[in-house]
Amino acid sequence: MGDVKLLAGERIDQLYSQDIQIIQSSQVFSFSLDAVLLANFAKAPTSAKGRLVDLCAGNGAVGLFMAPRTRGKIAMVELQARLADMAERSVVLNDLSEQVTVYHQDLATITDQIPKDSVDVVTCNPPYFSDLPTSKKNPNNYLAIARHEITTTLNTVLATTSDLLKMNGKAYFVHRPDRLVELLALMSANRLAAKRLQFVYPKAGRDANIVLVEAIKDGKATGLKVLPPIMTYGDDGAYSPAIHKMLYGEVSDE
Amino acid sequence: MGDVKLLAGERIDQLYSQDIQIIQSSQVFSFSLDAVLLANFAKAPTSAKGRLVDLCAGNGAVGLFMAPRTRGKIAMVELQARLADMAERSVVLNDLSEQVTVYHQDLATITDQIPKDSVDVVTCNPPYFSDLPTSKKNPNNYLAIARHEITTTLNTVLATTSDLLKMNGKAYFVHRPDRLVELLALMSANRLAAKRLQFVYPKAGRDANIVLVEAIKDGKATGLKVLPPIMTYGDDGAYSPAIHKMLYGEVSDE
Repeated sequence: MGDVKLLAGERIDQLYSQDIQIIQSSQVFSFSLDAVLLANFAKAPTSAKGRLVDLCAGNGAVGLFMAPRTRGKIAMVELQARLADMAERSVVLNDLSEQVTVYHQDLATITDQIPKDSVDVVTCNPPYFSDLPTSKKNPNNYLAIARHEITTTLNTVLATTSDLLKMNGKAYFVHRPDRLVELLALMSANRLAAKRLQFVYPKAGRDANIVLVEAIKDGKATGLKVLPPIMTYGDDGAYSPAIHKMLYGEVSDE
Repeated sequence: MGDVKLLAGERIDQLYSQDIQIIQSSQVFSFSLDAVLLANFAKAPTSAKGRLVDLCAGNGAVGLFMAPRTRGKIAMVELQARLADMAERSVVLNDLSEQVTVYHQDLATITDQIPKDSVDVVTCNPPYFSDLPTSKKNPNNYLAIARHEITTTLNTVLATTSDLLKMNGKAYFVHRPDRLVELLALMSANRLAAKRLQFVYPKAGRDANIVLVEAIKDGKATGLKVLPPIMTYGDDGAYSPAIHKMLYGEVSDE
């Protein structure tokens, strides 16, 4: 493991299933289950020539979690300096500097650095909430920007994704079901055809609270598949076997 | 029960959960689980002044199954004379002639009979398959018309639904997930805002094969809910408790 310094309030957490360590801070930013779900849902490019870009990278969770599953290069794009710095140090911590590059930059200008039509896979865990004046902002400004469309919009995320992707390149998003209609409409407007949806429910009998989306650039508009539901918690209140496996690896039979 | 004649090949089936009898024919048309799911998903207008219209009514299954749950009037609209006649006789069979009217008519012209902006609830189990030249048509012409967009299109169904509904009236559809993106886009284009989705899966671990959709005319585009998944069959190969209840009524504890 690389040698990195931790800032005040930071800790190192581990995603056991991928043997990845990640610098977190409860005061600044910690990855959520959404990042684990997205990294697990997305198919990494297999080839060493593959290019994966994670937009709205935060502290780098999605890219770090996918790194062990691809020989391709990974780019993380994060606007907030504090979070991009955490991601950069986590890359060093995991000895991934050869494979992973962190861009501290607004995603709207990332095609200055990464050519258009050059990327195989884009992942993004975007801000979920429209920045309406009535929204109750998080008093933590790092989280507010990560969760609300303050510095970017869903359309900008999708337009950038489409610009980056090669024809037939794939995009993976995690979002809230209450914005699914808008998400699908904006995807269509940005040449991203939805191919797979998967809904995540807190537990049996509850409405979905997370949706995972796979899209293909310039794909056909028909043929959507809706994958089996994922339950986060079982009736016993513990993580379901599917979620436990994403976090800790294969479930033992014992 | 009213006294009706059965034609050659016809039989009377029963939906036990609603105590409704329905004339069917394996040679012509029999309702499917989709109709039961749609009738169960849709909320009937409660008031005696409520108006419900079932488009693409077939042999009348959806309207018949909803009749016991509303004091309002029900209109069934079916283009095919043979199926409209079956529906009409099932209405008599169940002594529902006061409550239910069958229109043997193309839905595209139904606003000649039912005023625009006058209906509280529209239900529809439309043809699922685009009538592309490559589609493998059903050799049974009744079923071919019921399943393929030969005599109507999804956009015509949605435009008619929107025309019929009052502002804030509700529409309920059952469709195939592979056309969900198109369905949602055409709904938006026809002033129908999706409010609830529910996916039906054949059994655990399989992709969804049915989607149920609730929309509100002139509703807000946000706030979609995705309800808990419905499994058709349990791991034992028998109907799940949820489906068994829709077909046969409350499950006994014994």
